[in-house]
Amino acid sequence: MRLSRYFLPILKENPKEAEIVSHRLMLRAGMVRQQSQGIYSWLPLGKKVLDKVNGIIREEQNRAGAIELLMPTLQSAELWQESGRYEAYGKEMLRIKDRQDRPMLYGPTNEEMVTDIFRSYVKSYKNLPLNLYHIQLKFRDEIRPRFGTMRSREFLMKDAYSFDLTREDAIHSYNKMFVAYLRTFARLGMRAIPMRADTGPIGGNHSHEFIILADTGESEVFSHKAFVDFDIPAENTDFDDVAGLQTIFDKWTSVYAATSEMHDEAAFNAIPEGERLSARGIEVGHIFYFGTKYSEPMGAKVQGPDGKEHPVHMGSYGIGPTRLVPAIIEASHDENGIIWPASVAPFDSVVINMKAGDEQCDAVCERLYQALSNAGKDVLYDDTDDRAGTKFATADLIGVPTQVIAGPRSVANGEIELKDRKTGARETMTVEAAINKLIG
Amino acid sequence: MRLSRYFLPILKENPKEAEIVSHRLMLRAGMVRQQSQGIYSWLPLGKKVLDKVNGIIREEQNRAGAIELLMPTLQSAELWQESGRYEAYGKEMLRIKDRQDRPMLYGPTNEEMVTDIFRSYVKSYKNLPLNLYHIQLKFRDEIRPRFGTMRSREFLMKDAYSFDLTREDAIHSYNKMFVAYLRTFARLGMRAIPMRADTGPIGGNHSHEFIILADTGESEVFSHKAFVDFDIPAENTDFDDVAGLQTIFDKWTSVYAATSEMHDEAAFNAIPEGERLSARGIEVGHIFYFGTKYSEPMGAKVQGPDGKEHPVHMGSYGIGPTRLVPAIIEASHDENGIIWPASVAPFDSVVINMKAGDEQCDAVCERLYQALSNAGKDVLYDDTDDRAGTKFATADLIGVPTQVIAGPRSVANGEIELKDRKTGARETMTVEAAINKLIG
Repeated sequence: MRLSRYFLPILKENPKEAEIVSHRLMLRAGMVRQQSQGIYSWLPLGKKVLDKVNGIIREEQNRAGAIELLMPTLQSAELWQESGRYEAYGKEMLRIKDRQDRPMLYGPTNEEMVTDIFRSYVKSYKNLPLNLYHIQLKFRDEIRPRFGTMRSREFLMKDAYSFDLTREDAIHSYNKMFVAYLRTFARLGMRAIPMRADTGPIGGNHSHEFIILADTGESEVFSHKAFVDFDIPAENTDFDDVAGLQTIFDKWTSVYAATSEMHDEAAFNAIPEGERLSARGIEVGHIFYFGTKYSEPMGAKVQGPDGKEHPVHMGSYGIGPTRLVPAIIEASHDENGIIWPASVAPFDSVVINMKAGDEQCDAVCERLYQALSNAGKDVLYDDTDDRAGTKFATADLIGVPTQVIAGPRSVANGEIELKDRKTGARETMTVEAAINKLIG
Repeated sequence: MRLSRYFLPILKENPKEAEIVSHRLMLRAGMVRQQSQGIYSWLPLGKKVLDKVNGIIREEQNRAGAIELLMPTLQSAELWQESGRYEAYGKEMLRIKDRQDRPMLYGPTNEEMVTDIFRSYVKSYKNLPLNLYHIQLKFRDEIRPRFGTMRSREFLMKDAYSFDLTREDAIHSYNKMFVAYLRTFARLGMRAIPMRADTGPIGGNHSHEFIILADTGESEVFSHKAFVDFDIPAENTDFDDVAGLQTIFDKWTSVYAATSEMHDEAAFNAIPEGERLSARGIEVGHIFYFGTKYSEPMGAKVQGPDGKEHPVHMGSYGIGPTRLVPAIIEASHDENGIIWPASVAPFDSVVINMKAGDEQCDAVCERLYQALSNAGKDVLYDDTDDRAGTKFATADLIGVPTQVIAGPRSVANGEIELKDRKTGARETMTVEAAINKLIG
């Protein structure tokens, strides 16, 4: 992508409304724009990152056997009356009347609707286990949305829902998602710690939040430091291996970790002092097992091997992509801007033409841009008339992993400079060598 | 994907509520489910097709230089008061009050919001041309939604918006989208005819609808038959070539074509009788040039080369993916089910194990499934206990282009059968040969 043809509205000033660094950087880098209180547009740079985050979530959900569908945003109130949550949900639920005066709502979550889909089609235990997920907009009418897309009213959520005949099977489904989440956050460049959690309005009795540590986190968290060294389950993990997944779950829940709501001071104090971790964290995922809480009132039953009807055991599993993007930034930035992990970087590299209009600089940059693009790399080419200093600042701000810098002096020697955004390390090499290295 | 682990709720009976063939087939093939009047879930098979349609639309938008972003579904009423459309839009606009009693709406289209984004960041003609698009849910509260996702209330739309300094530049932007649309529909396996159109609530004075012919179409259309032989612009079309794009536009608008609203009986009758086409059609895209209709009242101005401020000239360009899916089915089906064009087929092929549990059949099917999957093909493997007849019927219904049939007799000879869904042609060959042919 040539920057001269792109839409990257960089802000020079620090926006006053941004209280936390991710919000500030997302506004400054032209990633998002607030349209109404707690409602954001994702501008092109932000949309690219969001797509990459969604892509990784999707791959790991599919790997764990979950199946993607797409439920609508608007739901009828009737469904929620069946589960008893229509009245219970409170003012965060955006209630709507359509032109025929039917009560509707903008879905804050989808337990009811997916249970309705399930009961309409699935009648036998032979079709279980089943896990259905979608990545879809939700709306929660928070009284005080803040921190940009970290806590917005309209937001994207990946929500998966598992259906099993028994509690035991459901725990296996739960463990699949537990493992998928560990892998997902690791691939996004973050180490998330699973913590026993309160179940809130979703209900149930077995639940974990995944928390990443960040000074700006909303939650106070307490854990053992051992998590830092735990191995992330491998790509070829066998998700059908009941015992194997249970072993992973047991390992990751063997040491103390809790948010303040679930904190047990005595248990925490039993950890040797040097091993205690007390910090602030950001919730980036939440998984629930809630048994027959919805299947019972809504009549989602299957015939079991005994010939009788049984309400299915369910779980739900949420990740918020529009919250993950700022969470990644909270965990990975410096005073000059964002430092994207390669897996979610909006571009693989940026080619910086220090003197656009200079014949040699233009030729070298064109060659780099073409060679990298043709090799399937996603390259931003800063071909604008801006001063070199502005270009460097923009490249640092938007946090692309590698900068390829072509100035008149180095180009005259047939060389360019590579700069690693994260380490700041610079290397001068021939154009050839740079292409080979970046394609490599 | 193993069918035993997939969620493909095939309906045996013809659903009574479906008036047109695409609606009937989408319900029967387990592609969609109505959740409320005119509001649908896209079940896994439908979601896969929808993703492929979106992928093609996206590629052609990007090729034409449009840049993707993502605007939210909910908008503030204030924006629409600025343009004057808040009162004018009528009851199809779903009006909402949030918990703070602020008037909001579920966007039926995004001219106002994108104009607001534009005016917030772009100040100079040097940043033009600009074309921003998103693929996002819309809501139009139709009094009588029908025909499944062909005319639903919550639907997906790709809407692009172009910004130019002058009318002349805007016409070039219009022509880019005109060409992108011709390519998009062709890649979706359809021939769409552009027709001069009424501008309706979007406004403006230069507009084309893209119509595909289908007996169930809502619109009556009149055109010259010449369209059938026009060449689709090539992949390497130069979108910066102003004259070249104008030539393509001129060619495609050189012969008579109009919907009933714009029909000119005399002009139509001037076509030799054998060359006249009078039929029903489905609108699958609509493009508009509307000048300064929104930029003027909303103050979206840029500084021109003359140093003065000019309101920008705009256009908008819509395609409805959730409508395209049934449109493709209307154009491509037979009495047994859907016949997907390869470009949007949910799977490339389906491996049919005629006797699951038979050692040889299982081994051959596993081998086919693994070999094709490893080669990057998207394969459905019908490994269920269903009778062979049921499996054939399902494969025909869901319309996957190639069926790979493995029964005990052929497998004993080391052979399988390939069936082409479209032509019905069958071919017996060795497993090896089949793999090579399908990977090739």
